Amino acid sequence: MKFSRFLFQSDIHQGVVTDEGIKEIEGDIFDRWTYTDRTFKEGDVQLLAPLVPNQIIGIGANFVSKIEDKPDTPPDIPVFFFKPTSSVIGPEEAIIIPIDINEVKFESELVVVIGKEAKNITKDQVLDHIFGYTVGNDVTAPQYFHEDGHWMVGKSFDTFTPLGPYVETELDPLNVSVEARVDQVEKQNSPLDLMIVSIQDMVSYLSNVMTLKKGDVIMTGSPVGAGMVAEGTTVECEIKDIGTLKNTLVKA
Amino acid sequence: MKFSRFLFQSDIHQGVVTDEGIKEIEGDIFDRWTYTDRTFKEGDVQLLAPLVPNQIIGIGANFVSKIEDKPDTPPDIPVFFFKPTSSVIGPEEAIIIPIDINEVKFESELVVVIGKEAKNITKDQVLDHIFGYTVGNDVTAPQYFHEDGHWMVGKSFDTFTPLGPYVETELDPLNVSVEARVDQVEKQNSPLDLMIVSIQDMVSYLSNVMTLKKGDVIMTGSPVGAGMVAEGTTVECEIKDIGTLKNTLVKA
Repeated sequence: MKFSRFLFQSDIHQGVVTDEGIKEIEGDIFDRWTYTDRTFKEGDVQLLAPLVPNQIIGIGANFVSKIEDKPDTPPDIPVFFFKPTSSVIGPEEAIIIPIDINEVKFESELVVVIGKEAKNITKDQVLDHIFGYTVGNDVTAPQYFHEDGHWMVGKSFDTFTPLGPYVETELDPLNVSVEARVDQVEKQNSPLDLMIVSIQDMVSYLSNVMTLKKGDVIMTGSPVGAGMVAEGTTVECEIKDIGTLKNTLVKA
Repeated sequence: MKFSRFLFQSDIHQGVVTDEGIKEIEGDIFDRWTYTDRTFKEGDVQLLAPLVPNQIIGIGANFVSKIEDKPDTPPDIPVFFFKPTSSVIGPEEAIIIPIDINEVKFESELVVVIGKEAKNITKDQVLDHIFGYTVGNDVTAPQYFHEDGHWMVGKSFDTFTPLGPYVETELDPLNVSVEARVDQVEKQNSPLDLMIVSIQDMVSYLSNVMTLKKGDVIMTGSPVGAGMVAEGTTVECEIKDIGTLKNTLVKA
Protein backbone atom coordinates (compact mmCIF):
# COMPACT_ATOMS: atom_id res chain seq x y z
CA MET A 1 0.00 0.00 0.00
CA LYS A 2 1.35 3.44 -0.96
CA PHE A 3 0.56 6.34 1.40
CA SER A 4 0.87 9.95 0.27
CA ARG A 5 0.37 13.45 1.59
CA PHE A 6 -0.65 16.15 -0.83
CA LEU A 7 -1.81 19.70 -1.20
CA PHE A 8 -5.13 20.42 -2.89
CA GLN A 9 -6.63 23.91 -2.89
CA SER A 10 -4.32 24.99 -0.05
CA ASP A 11 -5.31 22.14 2.27
CA ILE A 12 -3.14 19.18 3.21
CA HIS A 13 -4.69 15.75 2.65
CA GLN A 14 -3.54 12.15 3.10
CA GLY A 15 -4.35 9.33 0.76
CA VAL A 16 -3.67 5.86 -0.56
CA VAL A 17 -2.38 5.70 -4.12
CA THR A 18 -4.40 3.32 -6.34
CA ASP A 19 -4.82 2.74 -10.05
CA GLU A 20 -7.99 4.86 -9.91
CA GLY A 21 -6.25 7.80 -8.22
CA ILE A 22 -5.41 8.85 -4.68
CA LYS A 23 -8.16 7.72 -2.32
CA GLU A 24 -8.31 10.17 0.56
CA ILE A 25 -8.00 8.89 4.09
CA GLU A 26 -8.43 10.47 7.52
CA GLY A 27 -6.61 9.57 10.70
CA ASP A 28 -3.14 8.42 11.70
CA ILE A 29 -1.45 6.22 9.10
CA PHE A 30 0.46 4.47 11.93
CA ASP A 31 -2.67 3.70 13.90
CA ARG A 32 -6.30 4.10 12.84
CA TRP A 33 -7.44 5.62 9.61
CA THR A 34 -10.48 5.37 7.36
CA TYR A 35 -11.27 6.19 3.75
CA THR A 36 -13.33 9.28 3.01
CA ASP A 37 -15.46 9.23 -0.13
CA ARG A 38 -13.08 11.46 -2.12
CA THR A 39 -10.61 10.37 -4.80
CA PHE A 40 -8.10 12.80 -6.31
CA LYS A 41 -6.26 12.58 -9.61
CA GLU A 42 -2.53 12.69 -8.97
CA GLY A 43 -2.16 15.33 -11.67
CA ASP A 44 -4.53 17.64 -9.82
CA VAL A 45 -2.60 17.72 -6.54
CA GLN A 46 0.86 18.67 -5.33
CA LEU A 47 2.55 15.75 -3.61
CA LEU A 48 4.24 16.63 -0.30
CA ALA A 49 6.75 14.66 1.72
CA PRO A 50 4.70 11.54 2.49
CA LEU A 51 5.02 12.03 6.24
CA VAL A 52 6.13 14.63 8.77
CA PRO A 53 8.97 12.77 10.46
CA ASN A 54 9.29 12.74 14.22
CA GLN A 55 13.08 12.61 13.97
CA ILE A 56 15.49 11.94 11.10
CA ILE A 57 18.51 9.70 11.54
CA GLY A 58 21.14 9.10 8.87
CA ILE A 59 24.13 6.80 8.51
CA GLY A 60 27.33 7.67 6.71
CA ALA A 61 29.61 5.66 4.45
CA ASN A 62 27.30 2.64 4.36
CA PHE A 63 27.81 1.15 0.89
CA VAL A 64 30.76 -0.55 -0.77
CA SER A 65 31.24 -0.48 -4.51
CA LYS A 66 31.62 -4.24 -4.85
CA ILE A 67 30.67 -7.17 -2.68
CA GLU A 68 34.30 -8.25 -2.09
CA ASP A 69 34.95 -4.95 -0.26
CA LYS A 70 32.31 -5.63 2.36
CA PRO A 71 33.82 -5.97 5.86
CA ASP A 72 33.23 -9.29 7.62
CA THR A 73 31.73 -7.58 10.62
CA PRO A 74 29.84 -4.27 10.84
CA PRO A 75 31.65 -1.38 12.56
CA ASP A 76 31.53 -1.22 16.37
CA ILE A 77 30.14 2.31 16.27
CA PRO A 78 28.38 3.20 13.01
CA VAL A 79 28.57 6.81 11.77
CA PHE A 80 25.06 7.92 12.66
CA PHE A 81 23.88 11.52 12.51
CA PHE A 82 20.66 13.50 12.85
CA LYS A 83 19.07 15.83 10.33
CA PRO A 84 16.50 18.39 11.47
CA THR A 85 12.84 17.95 10.54
CA SER A 86 12.92 21.56 9.31
CA SER A 87 15.02 20.35 6.35
CA VAL A 88 12.27 18.16 4.85
CA ILE A 89 10.74 18.94 1.46
CA GLY A 90 8.61 16.92 -0.92
CA PRO A 91 8.77 15.81 -4.55
CA GLU A 92 9.34 18.58 -7.11
CA GLU A 93 10.20 21.16 -4.44
CA ALA A 94 13.43 23.11 -5.01
CA ILE A 95 16.61 22.20 -3.17
CA ILE A 96 18.14 25.55 -2.22
CA ILE A 97 21.92 25.82 -2.47
CA PRO A 98 23.05 27.97 0.48
CA ILE A 99 24.42 31.42 -0.17
CA ASP A 100 28.25 31.49 -0.41
CA ILE A 101 28.55 28.05 -2.06
CA ASN A 102 27.82 26.85 -5.59
CA GLU A 103 27.34 23.11 -5.24
CA VAL A 104 25.84 20.58 -2.86
CA LYS A 105 26.04 16.79 -2.78
CA PHE A 106 23.07 14.56 -3.60
CA GLU A 107 22.75 11.11 -2.04
CA SER A 108 19.90 8.81 -3.04
CA GLU A 109 18.78 6.57 -0.18
CA LEU A 110 16.25 4.00 0.95
CA VAL A 111 14.46 5.46 3.97
CA VAL A 112 12.95 3.33 6.72
CA VAL A 113 9.81 4.63 8.45
CA ILE A 114 9.39 3.37 12.02
CA GLY A 115 5.80 2.39 12.77
CA LYS A 116 5.88 1.53 16.43
CA GLU A 117 8.06 2.25 19.40
CA ALA A 118 11.28 0.22 19.39
CA LYS A 119 13.51 -0.11 22.45
CA ASN A 120 16.20 -2.77 22.83
CA ILE A 121 14.87 -4.85 19.95
CA THR A 122 16.77 -7.70 18.34
CA LYS A 123 17.55 -7.97 14.65
CA ASP A 124 14.73 -10.47 14.26
CA GLN A 125 12.21 -7.96 15.62
CA VAL A 126 13.19 -5.08 13.35
CA LEU A 127 10.93 -5.68 10.35
CA ASP A 128 7.94 -5.88 12.70
CA HIS A 129 8.65 -2.29 13.85
CA ILE A 130 8.99 -0.84 10.35
CA PHE A 131 5.84 0.70 8.90
CA GLY A 132 7.15 1.22 5.41
CA TYR A 133 9.78 2.71 3.16
CA THR A 134 10.27 5.85 1.13
CA VAL A 135 13.01 7.41 -0.98
CA GLY A 136 15.21 10.17 0.38
CA ASN A 137 17.89 12.51 -0.88
CA ASP A 138 20.38 13.23 1.90
CA VAL A 139 21.52 16.57 0.50
CA THR A 140 24.77 17.73 2.05
CA ALA A 141 27.06 20.77 1.91
CA PRO A 142 30.44 19.25 2.82
CA GLN A 143 31.88 22.77 2.68
CA TYR A 144 30.17 23.22 6.07
CA PHE A 145 31.55 20.08 7.71
CA HIS A 146 33.64 20.93 10.76
CA GLU A 147 37.26 19.85 10.41
CA ASP A 148 36.93 17.71 13.56
CA GLY A 149 34.30 15.57 11.86
CA HIS A 150 31.03 17.19 12.90
CA TRP A 151 28.57 17.14 10.02
CA MET A 152 25.67 18.99 11.65
CA VAL A 153 25.78 22.31 9.79
CA GLY A 154 26.51 20.71 6.41
CA LYS A 155 23.50 18.36 6.75
CA SER A 156 20.97 20.77 8.24
CA PHE A 157 20.12 23.50 5.76
CA ASP A 158 16.47 23.99 4.92
CA THR A 159 15.41 21.86 1.89
CA PHE A 160 18.26 19.37 2.43
CA THR A 161 16.02 16.36 3.06
CA PRO A 162 13.69 15.64 0.14
CA LEU A 163 11.45 12.64 0.93
CA GLY A 164 8.91 10.85 -1.24
CA PRO A 165 6.99 10.34 -3.34
CA TYR A 166 5.16 7.73 -1.21
CA VAL A 167 5.56 5.52 1.82
CA GLU A 168 5.33 1.95 0.48
CA THR A 169 4.33 -0.57 3.16
CA GLU A 170 4.72 -3.74 1.10
CA LEU A 171 8.32 -3.45 -0.02
CA ASP A 172 10.83 -6.25 0.39
CA PRO A 173 13.71 -4.00 1.48
CA LEU A 174 16.37 -6.58 0.71
CA ASN A 175 15.33 -6.84 -2.88
CA VAL A 176 15.64 -3.29 -4.20
CA SER A 177 18.23 -1.12 -5.90
CA VAL A 178 18.91 2.48 -4.91
CA GLU A 179 19.25 4.63 -8.03
CA ALA A 180 19.93 8.25 -8.89
CA ARG A 181 20.00 10.19 -12.11
CA VAL A 182 21.43 13.67 -12.58
CA ASP A 183 19.86 15.46 -15.56
CA GLN A 184 18.75 11.98 -16.74
CA VAL A 185 22.25 10.45 -16.57
CA GLU A 186 22.53 7.48 -14.18
CA LYS A 187 24.89 8.16 -11.27
CA GLN A 188 23.88 5.61 -8.65
CA ASN A 189 22.45 2.11 -8.96
CA SER A 190 23.28 -0.37 -6.22
CA PRO A 191 21.43 -3.34 -4.80
CA LEU A 192 21.05 -3.52 -1.03
CA ASP A 193 23.59 -6.32 -0.68
CA LEU A 194 26.28 -3.65 -1.06
CA MET A 195 25.07 -2.09 2.20
CA ILE A 196 27.56 -2.46 5.07
CA VAL A 197 25.37 -2.02 8.16
CA SER A 198 22.13 -3.84 7.26
CA ILE A 199 18.70 -2.41 8.04
CA GLN A 200 18.25 -5.04 10.75
CA ASP A 201 21.62 -4.25 12.35
CA MET A 202 21.06 -0.52 12.07
CA VAL A 203 17.60 -0.39 13.64
CA SER A 204 18.48 -2.90 16.35
CA TYR A 205 21.65 -0.96 17.22
CA LEU A 206 19.80 2.36 17.35
CA SER A 207 17.03 0.88 19.50
CA ASN A 208 19.66 -0.15 22.04
CA VAL A 209 20.75 3.49 22.27
CA MET A 210 17.49 5.40 22.04
CA THR A 211 13.78 4.70 21.97
CA LEU A 212 12.72 4.85 18.35
CA LYS A 213 9.19 6.19 17.92
CA LYS A 214 6.55 5.99 15.26
CA GLY A 215 7.31 8.53 12.59
CA ASP A 216 11.07 8.37 13.10
CA VAL A 217 12.79 7.90 9.75
CA ILE A 218 16.18 6.34 9.15
CA MET A 219 18.05 7.18 5.96
CA THR A 220 20.02 4.00 5.33
CA GLY A 221 23.02 5.38 3.46
CA SER A 222 23.87 6.15 -0.12
CA PRO A 223 25.57 3.96 -2.74
CA VAL A 224 28.74 4.78 -4.60
CA GLY A 225 28.20 7.51 -7.19
CA ALA A 226 26.87 10.39 -5.11
CA GLY A 227 28.38 13.69 -6.15
CA MET A 228 28.21 17.44 -6.30
CA VAL A 229 25.50 19.24 -8.28
CA ALA A 230 24.95 22.91 -9.10
CA GLU A 231 22.11 25.31 -9.83
CA GLY A 232 19.68 24.17 -12.51
CA THR A 233 20.48 20.48 -12.12
CA THR A 234 17.65 17.99 -11.64
CA VAL A 235 18.25 14.99 -9.39
CA GLU A 236 15.99 11.97 -9.54
CA CYS A 237 16.32 9.45 -6.72
CA GLU A 238 14.51 6.22 -7.44
CA ILE A 239 13.66 2.90 -5.91
CA LYS A 240 11.56 1.08 -8.49
CA ASP A 241 8.92 -0.34 -6.15
CA ILE A 242 8.43 2.99 -4.34
CA GLY A 243 8.77 5.68 -6.96
CA THR A 244 10.91 8.56 -8.14
CA LEU A 245 11.77 11.58 -6.03
CA LYS A 246 12.66 14.45 -8.34
CA ASN A 247 14.02 17.82 -7.23
CA THR A 248 15.79 20.67 -8.99
CA LEU A 249 18.53 22.82 -7.50
CA VAL A 250 18.25 26.57 -7.22
CA LYS A 251 20.54 29.21 -5.67
CA ALA A 252 19.49 30.93 -2.46
CA MET B 1 7.51 34.05 34.87
CA LYS B 2 8.41 30.42 35.54
CA PHE B 3 6.56 27.78 33.53
CA SER B 4 6.46 24.14 34.64
CA ARG B 5 5.04 20.81 33.54
CA PHE B 6 4.15 18.29 36.20
CA LEU B 7 2.51 15.00 36.93
CA PHE B 8 -0.38 14.85 39.39
CA GLN B 9 -2.44 11.69 39.83
CA SER B 10 -1.13 10.27 36.55
CA ASP B 11 -2.11 13.31 34.48
CA ILE B 12 0.25 15.85 32.96
CA HIS B 13 -0.46 19.50 33.81
CA GLN B 14 1.17 22.84 33.01
CA GLY B 15 1.48 25.70 35.41
CA VAL B 16 3.08 28.96 36.45
CA VAL B 17 5.21 28.79 39.58
CA THR B 18 4.26 31.45 42.16
CA ASP B 19 4.86 32.00 45.86
CA GLU B 20 1.43 30.51 46.54
CA GLY B 21 2.12 27.32 44.54
CA ILE B 22 1.88 26.24 40.93
CA LYS B 23 -1.10 27.89 39.27
CA GLU B 24 -2.40 25.57 36.59
CA ILE B 25 -2.72 26.86 33.05
CA GLU B 26 -4.26 25.47 29.86
CA GLY B 27 -3.12 26.10 26.32
CA ASP B 28 0.15 26.61 24.48
CA ILE B 29 2.78 28.42 26.54
CA PHE B 30 4.21 29.86 23.31
CA ASP B 31 0.91 31.23 22.13
CA ARG B 32 -2.37 31.46 24.04
CA TRP B 33 -2.94 30.11 27.51
CA THR B 34 -5.25 30.86 30.41
CA TYR B 35 -5.27 30.10 34.10
CA THR B 36 -7.62 27.43 35.39
CA ASP B 37 -8.87 27.79 38.96
CA ARG B 38 -6.52 25.11 40.36
CA THR B 39 -3.32 25.67 42.34
CA PHE B 40 -0.98 22.79 43.24
CA LYS B 41 1.60 22.61 46.00
CA GLU B 42 4.97 21.83 44.46
CA GLY B 43 5.51 19.10 47.06
CA ASP B 44 2.38 17.30 45.90
CA VAL B 45 3.41 16.97 42.25
CA GLN B 46 6.24 15.43 40.26
CA LEU B 47 7.96 18.03 38.12
CA LEU B 48 8.61 16.95 34.52
CA ALA B 49 10.87 18.47 31.89
CA PRO B 50 9.29 21.93 31.58
CA LEU B 51 8.59 21.47 27.87
CA VAL B 52 8.57 18.77 25.21
CA PRO B 53 11.20 20.12 22.84
CA ASN B 54 10.59 20.18 19.11
CA GLN B 55 14.29 19.61 18.44
CA ILE B 56 17.41 19.77 20.62
CA ILE B 57 20.59 21.45 19.40
CA GLY B 58 23.85 21.48 21.34
CA ILE B 59 27.19 23.19 20.92
CA GLY B 60 30.53 21.71 21.89
CA ALA B 61 33.62 23.24 23.49
CA ASN B 62 31.99 26.62 24.07
CA PHE B 63 33.60 27.91 27.28
CA VAL B 64 37.12 29.01 28.12
CA SER B 65 38.47 28.76 31.65
CA LYS B 66 39.60 32.39 31.81
CA ILE B 67 38.69 35.47 29.86
CA GLU B 68 42.21 35.90 28.39
CA ASP B 69 41.78 32.59 26.54
CA LYS B 70 38.76 33.78 24.61
CA PRO B 71 39.42 33.93 20.85
CA ASP B 72 39.01 37.33 19.23
CA THR B 73 36.54 36.00 16.69
CA PRO B 74 34.09 33.09 17.01
CA PRO B 75 34.87 29.95 14.97
CA ASP B 76 33.80 29.92 11.31
CA ILE B 77 31.85 26.70 11.81
CA PRO B 78 30.81 26.07 15.43
CA VAL B 79 30.65 22.45 16.66
CA PHE B 80 26.88 22.02 16.67
CA PHE B 81 25.13 18.69 17.20
CA PHE B 82 21.62 17.34 17.70
CA LYS B 83 20.30 15.28 20.58
CA PRO B 84 17.11 13.25 20.15
CA THR B 85 13.92 14.33 21.94
CA SER B 86 13.66 10.74 23.20
CA SER B 87 16.59 11.48 25.52
CA VAL B 88 14.73 14.10 27.60
CA ILE B 89 13.96 13.51 31.29
CA GLY B 90 12.87 15.86 34.06
CA PRO B 91 14.11 16.83 37.51
CA GLU B 92 14.79 13.94 39.92
CA GLU B 93 14.49 11.30 37.17
CA ALA B 94 17.33 8.80 36.99
CA ILE B 95 20.09 9.14 34.42
CA ILE B 96 20.70 5.59 33.20
CA ILE B 97 24.32 4.64 32.51
CA PRO B 98 24.29 2.38 29.43
CA ILE B 99 25.13 -1.27 29.79
CA ASP B 100 28.84 -2.02 29.10
CA ILE B 101 30.14 1.25 30.55
CA ASN B 102 30.51 2.49 34.11
CA GLU B 103 30.66 6.26 33.83
CA VAL B 104 29.11 9.07 31.84
CA LYS B 105 29.96 12.76 31.61
CA PHE B 106 27.73 15.48 33.09
CA GLU B 107 27.66 18.97 31.57
CA SER B 108 25.62 21.74 33.19
CA GLU B 109 24.25 24.21 30.63
CA LEU B 110 22.04 27.22 30.10
CA VAL B 111 19.33 26.18 27.64
CA VAL B 112 17.61 28.60 25.29
CA VAL B 113 13.96 27.93 24.40
CA ILE B 114 12.93 29.33 21.02
CA GLY B 115 9.49 30.95 21.15
CA LYS B 116 8.83 31.87 17.55
CA GLU B 117 10.07 30.84 14.14
CA ALA B 118 13.48 32.24 13.33
CA LYS B 119 14.93 32.23 9.81
CA ASN B 120 17.88 34.37 8.73
CA ILE B 121 17.69 36.60 11.79
CA THR B 122 20.43 39.01 12.82
CA LYS B 123 22.11 39.04 16.21
CA ASP B 124 19.97 41.99 17.23
CA GLN B 125 16.78 40.03 16.58
CA VAL B 126 17.77 36.96 18.61
CA LEU B 127 16.43 37.91 22.05
CA ASP B 128 13.06 38.69 20.50
CA HIS B 129 12.80 35.06 19.29
CA ILE B 130 13.71 33.50 22.63
CA PHE B 131 10.77 32.53 24.84
CA GLY B 132 12.78 31.70 27.93
CA TYR B 133 15.58 29.70 29.50
CA THR B 134 15.95 26.48 31.42
CA VAL B 135 18.81 24.41 32.83
CA GLY B 136 20.08 21.31 31.05
CA ASN B 137 22.51 18.50 31.66
CA ASP B 138 24.08 17.40 28.37
CA VAL B 139 24.89 13.88 29.53
CA THR B 140 27.40 12.19 27.25
CA ALA B 141 29.05 8.78 26.92
CA PRO B 142 32.35 9.69 25.17
CA GLN B 143 33.10 5.96 25.03
CA TYR B 144 30.57 5.91 22.17
CA PHE B 145 32.06 8.78 20.18
CA HIS B 146 33.15 7.64 16.73
CA GLU B 147 36.88 8.07 16.16
CA ASP B 148 36.17 10.27 13.15
CA GLY B 149 34.49 12.83 15.37
CA HIS B 150 30.81 11.84 15.20
CA TRP B 151 29.18 12.26 18.60
CA MET B 152 25.69 11.01 17.77
CA VAL B 153 25.65 7.68 19.62
CA GLY B 154 27.45 9.03 22.69
CA LYS B 155 24.94 11.90 23.02
CA SER B 156 21.72 10.05 22.26
CA PHE B 157 21.03 7.44 24.92
CA ASP B 158 17.66 7.61 26.65
CA THR B 159 17.77 9.82 29.80
CA PHE B 160 20.81 11.77 28.52
CA THR B 161 19.05 15.15 28.39
CA PRO B 162 17.69 16.21 31.79
CA LEU B 163 15.90 19.59 31.49
CA GLY B 164 14.34 21.76 34.16
CA PRO B 165 13.10 22.57 36.66
CA TYR B 166 11.30 25.50 34.97
CA VAL B 167 11.36 27.68 31.88
CA GLU B 168 12.10 31.20 33.16
CA THR B 169 10.97 33.92 30.76
CA GLU B 170 12.40 36.92 32.59
CA LEU B 171 16.07 35.96 32.79
CA ASP B 172 18.86 38.25 31.71
CA PRO B 173 20.93 35.55 30.02
CA LEU B 174 24.14 37.57 30.04
CA ASN B 175 24.07 37.95 33.79
CA VAL B 176 24.02 34.37 35.08
CA SER B 177 26.53 31.73 36.14
CA VAL B 178 26.28 28.09 35.11
CA GLU B 179 26.97 25.84 38.08
CA ALA B 180 27.17 22.14 38.84
CA ARG B 181 27.68 20.13 42.00
CA VAL B 182 28.50 16.44 42.18
CA ASP B 183 27.44 14.91 45.49
CA GLN B 184 27.29 18.49 46.81
CA VAL B 185 30.85 19.38 45.77
CA GLU B 186 31.08 22.29 43.33
CA LYS B 187 32.51 21.25 39.95
CA GLN B 188 31.37 24.02 37.60
CA ASN B 189 30.70 27.71 38.18
CA SER B 190 31.27 30.06 35.25
CA PRO B 191 29.71 33.35 34.25
CA LEU B 192 28.45 33.69 30.69
CA ASP B 193 31.30 35.98 29.66
CA LEU B 194 33.47 32.86 29.44
CA MET B 195 31.25 31.62 26.61
CA ILE B 196 32.99 31.59 23.20
CA VAL B 197 30.07 31.64 20.74
CA SER B 198 27.54 33.97 22.36
CA ILE B 199 23.81 33.24 22.48
CA GLN B 200 23.20 35.96 19.90
CA ASP B 201 25.89 34.61 17.56
CA MET B 202 24.73 31.02 18.03
CA VAL B 203 21.03 31.56 17.36
CA SER B 204 21.67 33.95 14.47
CA TYR B 205 24.14 31.48 12.88
CA LEU B 206 21.73 28.55 13.28
CA SER B 207 18.82 30.57 11.85
CA ASN B 208 20.90 31.15 8.72
CA VAL B 209 21.23 27.38 8.32
CA MET B 210 17.83 26.08 9.37
CA THR B 211 14.44 27.45 10.32
CA LEU B 212 14.28 27.40 14.11
CA LYS B 213 10.78 26.73 15.39
CA LYS B 214 8.95 27.34 18.61
CA GLY B 215 9.86 24.65 21.10
CA ASP B 216 13.35 24.13 19.67
CA VAL B 217 15.89 24.19 22.48
CA ILE B 218 19.55 25.11 22.21
CA MET B 219 21.97 23.87 24.86
CA THR B 220 24.57 26.63 24.93
CA GLY B 221 27.62 24.68 26.05
CA SER B 222 29.17 23.67 29.33
CA PRO B 223 31.83 25.47 31.40
CA VAL B 224 35.14 24.04 32.46
CA GLY B 225 34.77 21.40 35.16
CA ALA B 226 32.46 18.86 33.54
CA GLY B 227 33.57 15.31 34.25
CA MET B 228 32.76 11.64 34.51
CA VAL B 229 30.34 10.32 37.13
CA ALA B 230 29.35 6.81 38.15
CA GLU B 231 26.38 4.93 39.60
CA GLY B 232 24.94 6.43 42.77
CA THR B 233 26.26 9.94 42.12
CA THR B 234 23.91 12.91 42.29
CA VAL B 235 24.47 15.80 39.88
CA GLU B 236 22.90 19.18 40.52
CA CYS B 237 22.99 21.66 37.65
CA GLU B 238 22.01 25.14 38.70
CA ILE B 239 21.44 28.60 37.36
CA LYS B 240 20.39 30.72 40.32
CA ASP B 241 17.56 32.65 38.68
CA ILE B 242 16.07 29.51 37.10
CA GLY B 243 16.53 26.73 39.65
CA THR B 244 18.35 23.48 40.33
CA LEU B 245 18.10 20.41 38.12
CA LYS B 246 18.98 17.37 40.23
CA ASN B 247 19.41 13.83 38.89
CA THR B 248 20.99 10.68 40.22
CA LEU B 249 22.86 8.10 38.16
CA VAL B 250 21.84 4.46 38.03
CA LYS B 251 23.17 1.49 36.04
CA ALA B 252 21.07 0.06 33.23
